[in-house]
Amino acid sequence: MIGMLGICIFSYALCPAGTRWQGSGCLAPEDSFSVASRAAASFEHDHSISPLVPAREICHISGCRTTVLLSDRPREFMQVTAELQEKCIAEIALIVGAGGVLRGAEVGARYGQDWSGDNIGTPLAVVRPRTTEQVSQVVAVCARLGLAVVPQGGHTGLVGGAVPSQAGTEIVLSLELMNQIGELDERNFSMVVQAGCVLETVREHAAQRGFVFPLALGSQGSCQIGGAIATNAGGLNVLRYGMMRELVLGVEAVLPDGRVWNGLKALRKDNTGYDLKQLILGSEGTIGVVTAATLKLFPAPTQIETAFVALSSVAAVIDLFGSARRELSDLLSAFELLTQDGIEISGRASPLATVSPVYVLIEVSASGLVDARALLQQFLERALELGLITDGALAASAAHASSFWQIREEIIEAQLRRGRHLRTDVSMPISAIEVFIGKAEVAIKALSAEAIVLAYGHIGDGNLHFNVVPPQHLDQAGKMDFLHRCEEVIFAIVDGLNGSISAEHGVGRIKREAFLARISPVHVDMLKAIKGAFDPKGIMNPGRMLEETVR
Amino acid sequence: MIGMLGICIFSYALCPAGTRWQGSGCLAPEDSFSVASRAAASFEHDHSISPLVPAREICHISGCRTTVLLSDRPREFMQVTAELQEKCIAEIALIVGAGGVLRGAEVGARYGQDWSGDNIGTPLAVVRPRTTEQVSQVVAVCARLGLAVVPQGGHTGLVGGAVPSQAGTEIVLSLELMNQIGELDERNFSMVVQAGCVLETVREHAAQRGFVFPLALGSQGSCQIGGAIATNAGGLNVLRYGMMRELVLGVEAVLPDGRVWNGLKALRKDNTGYDLKQLILGSEGTIGVVTAATLKLFPAPTQIETAFVALSSVAAVIDLFGSARRELSDLLSAFELLTQDGIEISGRASPLATVSPVYVLIEVSASGLVDARALLQQFLERALELGLITDGALAASAAHASSFWQIREEIIEAQLRRGRHLRTDVSMPISAIEVFIGKAEVAIKALSAEAIVLAYGHIGDGNLHFNVVPPQHLDQAGKMDFLHRCEEVIFAIVDGLNGSISAEHGVGRIKREAFLARISPVHVDMLKAIKGAFDPKGIMNPGRMLEETVR
Repeated sequence: MIGMLGICIFSYALCPAGTRWQGSGCLAPEDSFSVASRAAASFEHDHSISPLVPAREICHISGCRTTVLLSDRPREFMQVTAELQEKCIAEIALIVGAGGVLRGAEVGARYGQDWSGDNIGTPLAVVRPRTTEQVSQVVAVCARLGLAVVPQGGHTGLVGGAVPSQAGTEIVLSLELMNQIGELDERNFSMVVQAGCVLETVREHAAQRGFVFPLALGSQGSCQIGGAIATNAGGLNVLRYGMMRELVLGVEAVLPDGRVWNGLKALRKDNTGYDLKQLILGSEGTIGVVTAATLKLFPAPTQIETAFVALSSVAAVIDLFGSARRELSDLLSAFELLTQDGIEISGRASPLATVSPVYVLIEVSASGLVDARALLQQFLERALELGLITDGALAASAAHASSFWQIREEIIEAQLRRGRHLRTDVSMPISAIEVFIGKAEVAIKALSAEAIVLAYGHIGDGNLHFNVVPPQHLDQAGKMDFLHRCEEVIFAIVDGLNGSISAEHGVGRIKREAFLARISPVHVDMLKAIKGAFDPKGIMNPGRMLEETVR
Repeated sequence: MIGMLGICIFSYALCPAGTRWQGSGCLAPEDSFSVASRAAASFEHDHSISPLVPAREICHISGCRTTVLLSDRPREFMQVTAELQEKCIAEIALIVGAGGVLRGAEVGARYGQDWSGDNIGTPLAVVRPRTTEQVSQVVAVCARLGLAVVPQGGHTGLVGGAVPSQAGTEIVLSLELMNQIGELDERNFSMVVQAGCVLETVREHAAQRGFVFPLALGSQGSCQIGGAIATNAGGLNVLRYGMMRELVLGVEAVLPDGRVWNGLKALRKDNTGYDLKQLILGSEGTIGVVTAATLKLFPAPTQIETAFVALSSVAAVIDLFGSARRELSDLLSAFELLTQDGIEISGRASPLATVSPVYVLIEVSASGLVDARALLQQFLERALELGLITDGALAASAAHASSFWQIREEIIEAQLRRGRHLRTDVSMPISAIEVFIGKAEVAIKALSAEAIVLAYGHIGDGNLHFNVVPPQHLDQAGKMDFLHRCEEVIFAIVDGLNGSISAEHGVGRIKREAFLARISPVHVDMLKAIKGAFDPKGIMNPGRMLEETVR
């Protein structure tokens, strides 16, 4: 039975406990999103389902049908645990000490949201252990009493994976106090760190010893290693060094029953048994809490050369990439697409006199005896001769190179200033990028000629952030409706090219439904089999990536 | 109850059905291993266990206690399936056609053994499907009737992972007829192949289009892609390109219930859900049959430069490696340790006048604009100035380079000519290699001053083949006993350095007990949880990697 209940307010404080918005894309925050326009949405309850099935609500936003979950947690579970919560937290306080548990007013807003600002929840309590042993004991208590655990790092996720539900029934397990850096083994090119170490700190520590830990993210000043492992973070240098999956030699994790798995080896080769480390990597906290890792280090590049080049078409970009792979001998460390629309919205001056539909930021990194500058210069000269590029600038200094990169960063900032917009994080075979951009631009412009399309991204990884700023004349509800339609259109084109709707951001809660709708029943069964095998009680980050299991 | 039953003959034809030798190392075959000496071993049956527990026998080889399993399959299962086997095979013949099933005399010896020759079994039948759909249907029949399936590639394994048991109750599922090469996408640097494609064929196909598929193994003329995926193969170029795990973009597999999982994407980034591809990689056929893959290609190097250098100590080798990483900008493609003992046993002349305890084969690969020869030459000159190396030769031609590599290959051949010997495949942090070699040499020499120690391997991967040729005056039983003791000593040193007893060869049946004895109960539980979740009936490659589950 579906019954109309009333007005849905897009603020959890004014909603029935646990109501949250459930979309599948990343919609950026907007301060001007008024309460009045939020109130224009109506919602319905669905009471036709059993108490053990999540209570669902259907929310209409000006005709855009979006599923809203009151809570992903079974009703029965919520009733049962209400009386156990205090007992559980009291037991946890004995483990982590008085300062290790934050409750009520002590819990700052940051524990309840992620970087996107779209995803907001309320923790039952925030628990901050200082050792792996404490994590183990805390999880064991939660497992015994059936309390859900949401592992949390630096709050820089974009898909609500580490945000507690709004029901106020989930324990946030923050690893932030576990931030010790262990041994850096110079001869093994490796270092051991605790999960709560901030990525920037890890990078600086490695740099001081002449190494690079090459994971490079916009959010590296806040992002923690445990979260980067749980979400298999990507970033700017994947082309050269791979994603987090390829940068981790060993992992220590606490399993959903509280036991510690010590996979903290420092080996480049260990062909014994299923690769449990790879299973933990990218599992989004659903089968264990990462507590420490052995990271792979590389010699710090002593030469980084950067160029900004203009090209006549996306097809030329793909040709230039193929040529760069061949001519630059795997020394390419970034190959980023930008468009003329992107430069315009950034408000920055192009380093080139030529106005062109597309541009590429090329970075070559080397250490030691290779002359990276001569290499890149020679490459650019040949590309110009061959007509692959129409113009180009080679950065004369680090500051000059930085000004190239600032154009890219300003595009992101400029999007934010335009208010609510659609950010996607799609991937496809590199050979399909040209078709994708062509089709997607036409499709978005067909929805509205006034929409601004901003495509930028990691060509070498086949990973684009194909974003849309809606027509500014639309009201908020109109913008949201428009952006949802854009997302559907973009995802359909990605589907047709055998791509992925989440190249690096993960699934979390925000993309869960879009993800599950796209994979085969066999694939769903395999994921569920793993989740069920590791977390039969379903306490670890329930409802993220997969639908919540009944516990 | 343990009862003496009689003489154990080390030939499956003369043994009680299903008897096989169960050690944990790789003992090379020896033609001169006489029936008389084999007959010196006695064995005992253990009837004290329930019918659902594998029937075990304990075998004594001149005092060396080795577990021998009559079969890893529960007795009850063997009785039950006897009457179902014909029905099952008849159903399978309807799926794959008359020529698709080999039985009795049609089954050549090669389907019953692997490259080491140590591991010999008898298939109930060899099934050779031609399509993924046929694999799916065959596995579905086996799942329904409870017949064990042993997926098989190019018979180049070394741990008995793809050899049927001697009980004659397992179906060998050979992928050899599924050897079609699909699309090579030049702009995506990828190609699609069926599991039965031979590695060499794949490499040649890529090379013809200007690419390299960089998995390089001694056995590449026989090894098949499906097996390389199932065992996460390594080889000579892991330092530059990674193991198979890093060379596969997508996998298609048939699950133990017969359903097809299509994970055949061609994406470099896809952060959605547990990485099922990584779980299949290295799973040794225990949770599915790989039927096809999308492989990652690289630009073919247009310059390969090779040097042979002499060093004063293993410590200097590790220092030289660190320096090479920094100075050669990730263009290093091989860094192989050899010893003076190795050169002597190879019978080949050293390219250097200097006699030194250790040598390194260095290979630098580049394409395009980098001058690899100048780079390597400059590096060697500096290394000589700094005293890192004492002598060196830069190959003047491909033939000259090939003569360097032949020394390494001849060591392997020379070992084989000396008869039964111990081959290990251990790994450790690179920083621990010096300690390992020092300790292991002392320990082996303490066991016998006449044993020949042959250490060679992939320094950059921390992966050594630390092999022992036993004193030649020992009889066969004495040699086996000696080699078992050597293996125990070596593995104990590896354990102390947090290393792995199988860096690239896998676990299979041969290393299963040594592997399981070394990992924590938590680790065992995690492996079993995965196996149980994917293969609850335990039909896929039972007894490999993990103990057989009762079906």
